[in-house]
Amino acid sequence: MVHRWRQTLIPTTREAPADAESPSHVLLSRAGFIRRLGSGIYDYLPLAWRTLRKVSQIVREEMDGAGAAELMLPAMLPIELYKDTKRDVDYGDLLFKVTDRKGAISALGPTHEEPITELVKGSITSYKQLPLSLYQVQTKFRDEARPRSGLLRCREFIMKDAYSFHTHVEGAGGLNEAYDAMFRAYNNVFKRCGLDFTAVEAESGPIGGSASHEFMVNAPSGEDTILKCPVSGYAANVEKCEIGDRPVEGGAFNSVPSGELTEVHTPGLPGIHEVGKFMKVKPERMLKTIVFRAVGTPALRDDGTSRSDAGTPEGIQWVLAVIRGDHEVNEGKVKSASGWKVELAPEKDARAAGFVIGYVSPKVIVGRTDFLMLVDPDVAGGGFWASGADKADHHVKHFNWKREVGAVLGDQRYVKLADIRNAAEGDPSPRTPGARLVTGRGIEVGHIFKLGTKYSDAMGFTILDEKQQKRGVIMGCYGIGVSRTMAASVEQNHDENGIIWPAAIAPYHVLITMMKAEDAAHMQAANTLAAGLADAGLDVLIDDRDERPGVKFKDADLIGIPVRLTIGDKALAEGGVEFKARRDPGKGEVVKLADAPAKCRALLG
Amino acid sequence: MVHRWRQTLIPTTREAPADAESPSHVLLSRAGFIRRLGSGIYDYLPLAWRTLRKVSQIVREEMDGAGAAELMLPAMLPIELYKDTKRDVDYGDLLFKVTDRKGAISALGPTHEEPITELVKGSITSYKQLPLSLYQVQTKFRDEARPRSGLLRCREFIMKDAYSFHTHVEGAGGLNEAYDAMFRAYNNVFKRCGLDFTAVEAESGPIGGSASHEFMVNAPSGEDTILKCPVSGYAANVEKCEIGDRPVEGGAFNSVPSGELTEVHTPGLPGIHEVGKFMKVKPERMLKTIVFRAVGTPALRDDGTSRSDAGTPEGIQWVLAVIRGDHEVNEGKVKSASGWKVELAPEKDARAAGFVIGYVSPKVIVGRTDFLMLVDPDVAGGGFWASGADKADHHVKHFNWKREVGAVLGDQRYVKLADIRNAAEGDPSPRTPGARLVTGRGIEVGHIFKLGTKYSDAMGFTILDEKQQKRGVIMGCYGIGVSRTMAASVEQNHDENGIIWPAAIAPYHVLITMMKAEDAAHMQAANTLAAGLADAGLDVLIDDRDERPGVKFKDADLIGIPVRLTIGDKALAEGGVEFKARRDPGKGEVVKLADAPAKCRALLG
Repeated sequence: MVHRWRQTLIPTTREAPADAESPSHVLLSRAGFIRRLGSGIYDYLPLAWRTLRKVSQIVREEMDGAGAAELMLPAMLPIELYKDTKRDVDYGDLLFKVTDRKGAISALGPTHEEPITELVKGSITSYKQLPLSLYQVQTKFRDEARPRSGLLRCREFIMKDAYSFHTHVEGAGGLNEAYDAMFRAYNNVFKRCGLDFTAVEAESGPIGGSASHEFMVNAPSGEDTILKCPVSGYAANVEKCEIGDRPVEGGAFNSVPSGELTEVHTPGLPGIHEVGKFMKVKPERMLKTIVFRAVGTPALRDDGTSRSDAGTPEGIQWVLAVIRGDHEVNEGKVKSASGWKVELAPEKDARAAGFVIGYVSPKVIVGRTDFLMLVDPDVAGGGFWASGADKADHHVKHFNWKREVGAVLGDQRYVKLADIRNAAEGDPSPRTPGARLVTGRGIEVGHIFKLGTKYSDAMGFTILDEKQQKRGVIMGCYGIGVSRTMAASVEQNHDENGIIWPAAIAPYHVLITMMKAEDAAHMQAANTLAAGLADAGLDVLIDDRDERPGVKFKDADLIGIPVRLTIGDKALAEGGVEFKARRDPGKGEVVKLADAPAKCRALLG
Repeated sequence: MVHRWRQTLIPTTREAPADAESPSHVLLSRAGFIRRLGSGIYDYLPLAWRTLRKVSQIVREEMDGAGAAELMLPAMLPIELYKDTKRDVDYGDLLFKVTDRKGAISALGPTHEEPITELVKGSITSYKQLPLSLYQVQTKFRDEARPRSGLLRCREFIMKDAYSFHTHVEGAGGLNEAYDAMFRAYNNVFKRCGLDFTAVEAESGPIGGSASHEFMVNAPSGEDTILKCPVSGYAANVEKCEIGDRPVEGGAFNSVPSGELTEVHTPGLPGIHEVGKFMKVKPERMLKTIVFRAVGTPALRDDGTSRSDAGTPEGIQWVLAVIRGDHEVNEGKVKSASGWKVELAPEKDARAAGFVIGYVSPKVIVGRTDFLMLVDPDVAGGGFWASGADKADHHVKHFNWKREVGAVLGDQRYVKLADIRNAAEGDPSPRTPGARLVTGRGIEVGHIFKLGTKYSDAMGFTILDEKQQKRGVIMGCYGIGVSRTMAASVEQNHDENGIIWPAAIAPYHVLITMMKAEDAAHMQAANTLAAGLADAGLDVLIDDRDERPGVKFKDADLIGIPVRLTIGDKALAEGGVEFKARRDPGKGEVVKLADAPAKCRALLG
């Protein structure tokens, strides 16, 4: 298809909006793809809309290929839908709400688990109608506290959301089969979009297990950290990433003291780095002891035991996590290692229970039984350690596990070595002994989940199986940020002059730049060329504006169409046109007019 | 493409929802196309979504053909956008509003004149960038007071809205050229959708002239009345329809009395029909005098004069419209005949000014000069007339114009014969002398307007022309109800068994019904057949459910796929399949499997 610049709206500008920092926000604005209408609310101009339609089309083809059927649910959802799942409360301010003329309240759909569950619940009557996968490509609404980075975090955005329904998990027709099909479809989508991406294991939230993956577009400007094992290909996000074995040199809690335990007065220092500087101790030789409160009833531990199974009558109230000063605690790992749901201890309660928050040391456990202490292997060895002193404005030097904490160290009911921190660059790979994890930055563009029966249980969606037994329906859900994918592509593919679109999602494949828009010979050449390109299945934009060539070339680089063909007197006199790939620096080459379509096709793949 | 019933969601039912009355609401619900989620809010299930996508695609192709570029504006529009046009107030309760976490208010777009004007205003700088036509296919939101008839009047719906921008009206690049292109595109859209429709002249609101057309799908269940001249092809909606010359027999206001003016006591009768019954007078022999209040300043009359031009110092305060008791007054015609903006007189004010509302007669004008009386030609002749008596609970018989109202009748400043009522079946055609208007019912699916500078003026959107003069930008706007078109098609195309889709917008072209879903030979035949049909460019649904044939046939009629191919033992033994067109009653015919695709293609056109 052929469009003309003057028949569409591409308001390129030299200046980016004042609030634009990320490359995609700057470039999509400057290149006339998007325009801010309100906080986190953007117009998609014709170029953006063409790219979004191409991304959507790829998504649709892959969803259809994964056996999902497309539908469209309303954006406006009666708030009563959320009654059973309580997400009206859980979402909080994130949920936009509308009150109608009769006082009825609707939410603007931030995602559609509830309405799709209500639809399928009301539509199917027999287990024979499962499995079923449904999807939509739809505008979603979320009242983000801090909309930013243009389309990367906005309040109205386009998302593909899919949902699958099953009677069982394993085998034909089960959740795992659909999940695997979606996993493959997602890989196909982002591959076909021309993106360099990583599928990472992710925390799945309330379901547990390895039942969630995120798809990350690799880009240095990404706000998420990805960890990869270059040998095994294992990849995970920072919340999820396991760390390989870390043997403790000399055995855990078994070293000789590095010196006398010495108290140091460290008044009013705001953080571990300031304290370390003051004490002349590096953060990696300091112990950070984080106090969590155990909430609810214990989940089973990995080994199937809970504290009470192990014969300890007293309940756990506190979970202490001890890690190196330069590491970050990982709440999901703490939860899974402790077997308890945990929350960061509220300061007031923790103080009342004897924890001097900000100055807690492992020594605080001596003489009490209401705790479980998790110790990261990196701090269980010997050598010099600094720590809090369990006393405001004081720290200690020469902390020694055996001397300070004593006999309880051997009791798995109270103290456990465990991986409880975020992985970092250089950590051992959890899959390949000897290999080391490397880190990268990514932008999350897709996320797939095994939901289990969370929603069907909450909404009373059961089905009779072949034995006439009621069963909870098992679900999966699968999201792709369509508008986010466009922005992520720009984050990954640009240079100082503008965007560089992958061919599959470029608004047009070829830009024909006319040096003289009003010249009859140029116009005829442009039209003939465009017709040939369109016949070759390419989408063509003709820059027919009455502007100087310099302006046109700058705009061409800015909007990032993969191929630019320039019609000028010199080449035209020889029956040629200048061919230039956007991704290649330097000057173009003259090709015969008749050869241009094949040359473009070859480059575009 | 080939889909399987069991892989999609088509929850057919025997019963329609309790509130469903219109055929499209009943059938789309029963056939599993839509499901009500809230008041005026519907899920589009996979079949509906396929039809909606096909309608949208036709719309897109025709919009592109008319030179418009597609984009997508947000649904959530900062309320400040409406400040200048005051439509936040004019829309009133129709506008859904959302308050965000910071207290900022947004409207959910009911249509997008303001944001598109704001976008184009902010994007173009030179008259050289005009004309420009832009469109989107988008979900719109309107808080209808009485959502009804399923998708025909709902609160969240899909609309194509286009807008054009110009520096001038006539000639190349002008509004009229774009309007005409849109008019042709609209005709193409509805023709391609396989609909029987009428393009009618419509009231254009604030702009005046003949600058608006509605596209009506002809259907007896339609809520709009269409009038057509079968000779000239003239068609208009009831608000707009002109009426041809109606000469007054014996001359206007010129007859001899039918008898003595006689007052009749008509206590507490609620309406003209009850009064007529009581007085034994048919409504068509009664005068209805409606009192309007003139508001604002006078517009120019058709002849270019206003009351003050005509030398009458006093202003008009009241416009009286006198029509036959069985006719309906037409406010637009009253406005245009009087040269004044008018509103129905508030009862309290009218009473204070001496109008006994409910009992007003033309006689009320005697002795006053603050009025203009418009008289419909149908009541200006002689014979018997009944009328109000300008006195509560009283009417008169034998009203005679000359006797009762007198000399002022000849003064065009005070009394004017004019077409001021809605046209009705049998009225003279305004285009062909001797021809009579016929009426029909229609469902409005498209509306195109010449807006002029209404929005650009309100929003301060001017542009410098080639002489560096500031000019208001001239706009047109063009809407198609996409979801309404689907429903209108069902209103027009159905029988007692279900929907009958036109091929172009059917969710699938061909339904393959397997008599035995589990039979390997049937399955193989179905697959081969489906592949052949898909190769012929047809969309195929295979009914692979384990259901009785009777259930499948009933469902096939209900969902209305144009062709049903039935795979059964008998035909299959002879290498055949039963072919049945949904629109043809009676039984199907057996065709060779290999001939089926060509036969389908031929029927589908």
